[in-house]
Amino acid sequence: MELEPGQVHYLLRVMRLSQGERIRLFNGCDGEWQGRLAPHGRAKVAVEVERRTRAQDADDGPWLAFAPVKKSATDFIVEKATELGAARILPVLTERTIAQRVNVERLQATATEAAEQCGRLSVPEVAAPLTLPSFVAMWPAQRPLCVAHPQARDAALPLLDALTGPASASALPAGFLVGPEGGLTSVELDGLAALRCVKVVSLGTRTLRAETAAVAVLAVWQALNERSCAAATPPHFKDNPGQA
Amino acid sequence: MELEPGQVHYLLRVMRLSQGERIRLFNGCDGEWQGRLAPHGRAKVAVEVERRTRAQDADDGPWLAFAPVKKSATDFIVEKATELGAARILPVLTERTIAQRVNVERLQATATEAAEQCGRLSVPEVAAPLTLPSFVAMWPAQRPLCVAHPQARDAALPLLDALTGPASASALPAGFLVGPEGGLTSVELDGLAALRCVKVVSLGTRTLRAETAAVAVLAVWQALNERSCAAATPPHFKDNPGQA
Repeated sequence: MELEPGQVHYLLRVMRLSQGERIRLFNGCDGEWQGRLAPHGRAKVAVEVERRTRAQDADDGPWLAFAPVKKSATDFIVEKATELGAARILPVLTERTIAQRVNVERLQATATEAAEQCGRLSVPEVAAPLTLPSFVAMWPAQRPLCVAHPQARDAALPLLDALTGPASASALPAGFLVGPEGGLTSVELDGLAALRCVKVVSLGTRTLRAETAAVAVLAVWQALNERSCAAATPPHFKDNPGQA
Repeated sequence: MELEPGQVHYLLRVMRLSQGERIRLFNGCDGEWQGRLAPHGRAKVAVEVERRTRAQDADDGPWLAFAPVKKSATDFIVEKATELGAARILPVLTERTIAQRVNVERLQATATEAAEQCGRLSVPEVAAPLTLPSFVAMWPAQRPLCVAHPQARDAALPLLDALTGPASASALPAGFLVGPEGGLTSVELDGLAALRCVKVVSLGTRTLRAETAAVAVLAVWQALNERSCAAATPPHFKDNPGQA
């Protein structure tokens, strides 16, 4: 298998690997493979693929939608969402979203690097930015969507209750929407209410930054999922095989 | 009340407030107060304190101990720990800790700024760095300590189980220790085992970066705490009034 120039740079210059050294490979569908850096010329490097070391795991993680924030915080959200198992990452442009430009290609590269780092066998797809109405229109009706936004406290469910109630998000494919620092407008909240799968959730009494909220919701989902896995019953996969 | 130079700079230059505008004040013990910027000279600014707007909440958040990582990630941990309610932040120097210098003063300033931003009425104390043996020696015997480190998966409890079992950390003052990226050594783990309150916890199958792990454990604690608060029974405070 021949490597791409960016991969060659990373392996030879950053990681300082040399010929004969072993690396692990994944492509998002065939599991994890062990390979060995083959003799190489000046610019081209190949890997001799040796044997499969892990089976592909189901990519049934939550979808994370978020209103893009400034560059470093957006990078951070994508990196942490990848580590915490998000299957799709959806930038959503809301009325109070400050960043209107999103470099999807760079964010996709950030997600790839984070997946390599954390030993994940898939890279979440970073979608092209959507406006909130387009986002509402594309959201699958059967995928629960927990909306976290700073002004929602009184009307909101504690996050764990939203994720562990009957027909809860932890027992189904899950989704989260984290609004911008200024919150969603009431018109936007009404628009979201058109989705029957929406629950507005509370993340406590303090006003979390957008990137903190994004990491927090995924960390809680991941902790619930880890417990389900440890109990050897991944219900979010067994009960709903055909869901989006 | 006269303001300090750094506060004056922040209010007048960064936030561009002018005379007569209202601000909210807290000192960590008397709740939240409303005040108004009084007429000011060139360098000195005073606040006329008007009335109390919130009572002080109990500062019974978890203690976060972590092995310092590179500068930006350490800043990040302190900022997010403050937002997520940590009451004390304890840098711990372990064998595989890369950063050996910790600027406690700068981290304390980061915590103060994060507390102001998130509407918290207390600033967590950032302690001077301790070696792991000193940390073990100072840890209060009755405060549960969940240790997250990447190599612990097989022997470890899922985090939620550790926090919700009988005599669990969520029903008591809680503590977390997040090891360095290379993990704790087996000698260090043995040292920690001397504390009877230690549980080694798992954060899932992916290898989280140290700063992700720190945010994840606090987010899960916060979600459990939020649920307890919503149910109007904060057991971690009622049942153990005298604990550290």
